[in-house]
Amino acid sequence: MNTSSPSLQQIRTLDQSDPLAAKRDEFVLPSNTIYLNGNSLGPLTRGAQRRGHEVIEQQWGKDLIASWNQHAWIDLPFTSAQKVAPLLGADASQLVCCDSVSINLLKLLSTCLQLQRPRTIILSQEDNFPTDLYVAQGLQSMLGPGLCQLKTVAADELIGALDENIAVLFLTEVNFRNGDRHDIQQLTALAQNKGILVIWDLSHSTGVLPLHLDDWAVDFAVGCGYKYLNGGPGAPAFIYANKRHHERIEQPIQGWMGHKDPFAFDPSYKKGLGVAQFLTGTPAIVSLAILDSALDVFSDIEITTIYGKATALSELFLGLIKDADVLQELKLESSADPSLRGAQLAFSHSDAYGICRALNEAGVVVDFRSPDIIRFGFSPLFLRFEDIWLATQMLMKTLEDKTYLAEKYSRKLKVT
Amino acid sequence: MNTSSPSLQQIRTLDQSDPLAAKRDEFVLPSNTIYLNGNSLGPLTRGAQRRGHEVIEQQWGKDLIASWNQHAWIDLPFTSAQKVAPLLGADASQLVCCDSVSINLLKLLSTCLQLQRPRTIILSQEDNFPTDLYVAQGLQSMLGPGLCQLKTVAADELIGALDENIAVLFLTEVNFRNGDRHDIQQLTALAQNKGILVIWDLSHSTGVLPLHLDDWAVDFAVGCGYKYLNGGPGAPAFIYANKRHHERIEQPIQGWMGHKDPFAFDPSYKKGLGVAQFLTGTPAIVSLAILDSALDVFSDIEITTIYGKATALSELFLGLIKDADVLQELKLESSADPSLRGAQLAFSHSDAYGICRALNEAGVVVDFRSPDIIRFGFSPLFLRFEDIWLATQMLMKTLEDKTYLAEKYSRKLKVT
Repeated sequence: MNTSSPSLQQIRTLDQSDPLAAKRDEFVLPSNTIYLNGNSLGPLTRGAQRRGHEVIEQQWGKDLIASWNQHAWIDLPFTSAQKVAPLLGADASQLVCCDSVSINLLKLLSTCLQLQRPRTIILSQEDNFPTDLYVAQGLQSMLGPGLCQLKTVAADELIGALDENIAVLFLTEVNFRNGDRHDIQQLTALAQNKGILVIWDLSHSTGVLPLHLDDWAVDFAVGCGYKYLNGGPGAPAFIYANKRHHERIEQPIQGWMGHKDPFAFDPSYKKGLGVAQFLTGTPAIVSLAILDSALDVFSDIEITTIYGKATALSELFLGLIKDADVLQELKLESSADPSLRGAQLAFSHSDAYGICRALNEAGVVVDFRSPDIIRFGFSPLFLRFEDIWLATQMLMKTLEDKTYLAEKYSRKLKVT
Repeated sequence: MNTSSPSLQQIRTLDQSDPLAAKRDEFVLPSNTIYLNGNSLGPLTRGAQRRGHEVIEQQWGKDLIASWNQHAWIDLPFTSAQKVAPLLGADASQLVCCDSVSINLLKLLSTCLQLQRPRTIILSQEDNFPTDLYVAQGLQSMLGPGLCQLKTVAADELIGALDENIAVLFLTEVNFRNGDRHDIQQLTALAQNKGILVIWDLSHSTGVLPLHLDDWAVDFAVGCGYKYLNGGPGAPAFIYANKRHHERIEQPIQGWMGHKDPFAFDPSYKKGLGVAQFLTGTPAIVSLAILDSALDVFSDIEITTIYGKATALSELFLGLIKDADVLQELKLESSADPSLRGAQLAFSHSDAYGICRALNEAGVVVDFRSPDIIRFGFSPLFLRFEDIWLATQMLMKTLEDKTYLAEKYSRKLKVT
């Protein structure tokens, strides 16, 4: 390694002066693991561990049905959303936690198409996260081309494609593969100038990138509860709907929890106030309570501090590997400019899958993304700068030793 | 009480000879509580308690993202469904657990409308469970009257309303209020004779009533995980799709988990095999794992045994109260013929809400259903015959003492 790279001693001073260093103790982390996958499934917090026990054993187990009132289960979609609000730069009255990102996108897309009639086109990006495209494709098949057409273009063609025929612009801020980051404020304003509504998928942003949805006058957004928010596997997602739309919205993915008075058992649907109408069925309370608790780790820190550390971690990673000969076979697919990427780095390699498996077995947990991407996520609440040094050491060793060529890595596991 | 009612001693012999008596030990039940609300939120099983701890602390906490493969999280929608299959009389290849009842109904209704074009009418019952009606109303508003119209009729007008204009008949077997039970086999056959597809909501049936979906050639069904299945608050629901439809189905509520190869990150949706296409977003794994474990209590018992005890419990209840003068002010709203009702009894009373609150405070947990219904649920895996005696004693005492008139019960809680 070139002498211009920081030494381990220098790196340890970064940890000593890290304002987020104490946050690590709020997480349950397995030993001998460097977890560069908090962007895929965030780890368990100690608070969520306690809350899981509490909601299962104390609430459901002892208080049973009375818990809906006694432990305010009925309010959890809103109380959890209140904790997401500061991370989005949003007034909490515009947020609710429920269902999955896919289902919530369906709610928003169908709502936007209703609001925008006679416009019928959903504009998105060819390499948007696949589930986002699948939701729109399904809606198109359900409504038929007379009511809905999905149009996808390359990222650099988006601005040129914004015109008065487009009903809704539907994008993910941070690309799941390479981490490329859109300028939400600019694209939102350009779209709105053409009378287009904008839906942002913030799954790879929330909890790590600074967001100012209210200031940017974003129309709608969704995001994932289980990545940087650490809400647990398949945690409920959130929906943001700017309050200027609340009166006009008639969200059609209806269910009793979105009714203005669910326990009146009225045979006719009457939409709940504000974002309440985005609720559909009974929330998965155990998963939602765990998300609610996981969000508490954000209560005493600023998103700018988190983002600053995320950037410092990924820049350190790049600095540590830039002069290693053996690493020249990895091609950086993410922007080298941290302001143009999310809190992740993607590298391509023809043996990416084997390298990921070998790293994971060595305790450096990273993601493979088909066909040839190794993805490193920099979730700043539990990662130390020293972890980055250790991870790059292991990466270099893996590439030198070529352990990734082992036969056992040739067959892909079901989930990659 | 009339001497023709069984004595407590006689009732205790029923418990002694109950083949399900030992099942009670598999549940965590609070002391001093008689829980006649297992039809609304089933109690925690000891297995689910352990599994909750395991999935949170051992799997998510220690094995993190690797758990998707290592602990087969990815298969949970199917492995849990395999345990539901025998309760439905269904081959497991037709079942998957995911999302909520409301979302799953939306999947089925939109699928059926696609299959049935040019038919556009959804036929349901005026007093179907409200969320079922809301889902259909929302779909109608989304698709417009050219593609979808909801028609509702009274229960006794359903058969007469079946004609060649109807796309789908959409009913709940057991009415949530009075427990009235439809004849699934008869209605399914009558509808199919007119080329109508049938969707059954089995939320108040599954786990307590004998079902033979395959033998009855039912087209589609959904059901709730948190009532008689004891899967926990907001547990995932299930979907049944008869295999004769699998090839033709193009389920439009799409998401990556329903793709035939989710981790290929293909920009175009290609439906998963069979019922896999009914998956949408990432499943709420903690809630799903708990449901999966809760279902294990059914592994060594027959549904006919469960149903037999449910009937015996509700008949005992009716027998114990039939001669009590003070109870004559309660009007039985359920059928007196157990073969015509589900595992519940509903009574109307002008002070129903106060009576429910007073009973609940006295440890007899029952449900209020607006506007004037007291609902008693007979979930046979943890209830003893003696509990029925104690519950009726408390009911009589409450009505005699008129404790339900207390000021504190005059204001309704948020969740009733």
